Amino acid sequence: MKLPKVIENLIESFQKLPGIGPKTAQRLTFYLLNVPQSQLDHFAESISNLKKKTFFCSVCKNITEVDLCPICSDPSRNRKVIMVVEQPLDLIAFEKTGKFKGLYHVLHGRISPLENIGPDEIFVDDLLKRISSQDIDEIIIATNPNMEGEATAMYLAKEIRKISDSIKITRLGMGIPTGADLEYADDLTLTQALEGRRQI
Amino acid sequence: MKLPKVIENLIESFQKLPGIGPKTAQRLTFYLLNVPQSQLDHFAESISNLKKKTFFCSVCKNITEVDLCPICSDPSRNRKVIMVVEQPLDLIAFEKTGKFKGLYHVLHGRISPLENIGPDEIFVDDLLKRISSQDIDEIIIATNPNMEGEATAMYLAKEIRKISDSIKITRLGMGIPTGADLEYADDLTLTQALEGRRQI
Repeated sequence: MKLPKVIENLIESFQKLPGIGPKTAQRLTFYLLNVPQSQLDHFAESISNLKKKTFFCSVCKNITEVDLCPICSDPSRNRKVIMVVEQPLDLIAFEKTGKFKGLYHVLHGRISPLENIGPDEIFVDDLLKRISSQDIDEIIIATNPNMEGEATAMYLAKEIRKISDSIKITRLGMGIPTGADLEYADDLTLTQALEGRRQI
Repeated sequence: MKLPKVIENLIESFQKLPGIGPKTAQRLTFYLLNVPQSQLDHFAESISNLKKKTFFCSVCKNITEVDLCPICSDPSRNRKVIMVVEQPLDLIAFEKTGKFKGLYHVLHGRISPLENIGPDEIFVDDLLKRISSQDIDEIIIATNPNMEGEATAMYLAKEIRKISDSIKITRLGMGIPTGADLEYADDLTLTQALEGRRQI
């Protein structure tokens, strides 16, 4: 059956989004047919302006609409501690905890030879320049605990060591997440939880 | 943490869609930050034009960009059989089978006293007028097999009977769906499958 062109276009656009298959794309499109035009216009405008009104913070590479970004320009934050994350969403996850008071550096990716992503494709140079030119106490490398994330962390640690011997370089604690079932945890997680055990 | 306004707007818009929670809305928004502007513009345009370029077919109330819709204007279809469905998506599901060669009537809802939806809020009158003014052999009432769908079907059957005694009024066959496990089927489905058994 031939659907109206504009409906087909929108189904196609939705289908390009991650985790949205053909059935969901169809359902979302037909749902929007029942939504007031003003709301559709607002939605369309947000999409179209998304990249026009945002850019990377010149210091930390977080996505922002003002330079410096609100975190880099916040005088109450500890400028001597930098947490390195892969994506802006990782930064948001940490900001939600409210427990980290240092600055960030967003790599916008991780080193992945299989996908042809080397250090030059992500914001590694900017991080190293930032570390060379400033007085830093600690770098927390918070890349994801998978193969690419670990490789990126090891590469970064090596490069940071070339700049300074005194900077503390740390990785996030590994172990059992809150609320998990020991029974279902994998061997590596259990091993790391055992190695990282703490006195109570 | 304060996100850029345009990002917050888009997350909000995504969150209004059915089945999309705050985490998915965030993920979709940040995904779009990595998409070329031309694709964003195309997406935005599709949303903004969705309702401007489509309307209801004057006969069957299906969503269309030309009046009559392609199904109503197709001379090869059997004009004496009308399948009544709740939503355009139901029509699309049947069209995909390629097995139905009659016309449709889209109600755009079902009778639901709890939600204050009576026969006047959906396209019941248009259906009854269509039946009165044309030579119809059969009406297949393909509303959903739940409480509201059944109530709508019963109401329609009663109203159609008032117009004509000779029109055949049918409901879709009920029973076990293909690929299902008898073990997990509910009592009502099994009862209906038993009642609707066919000789092989």
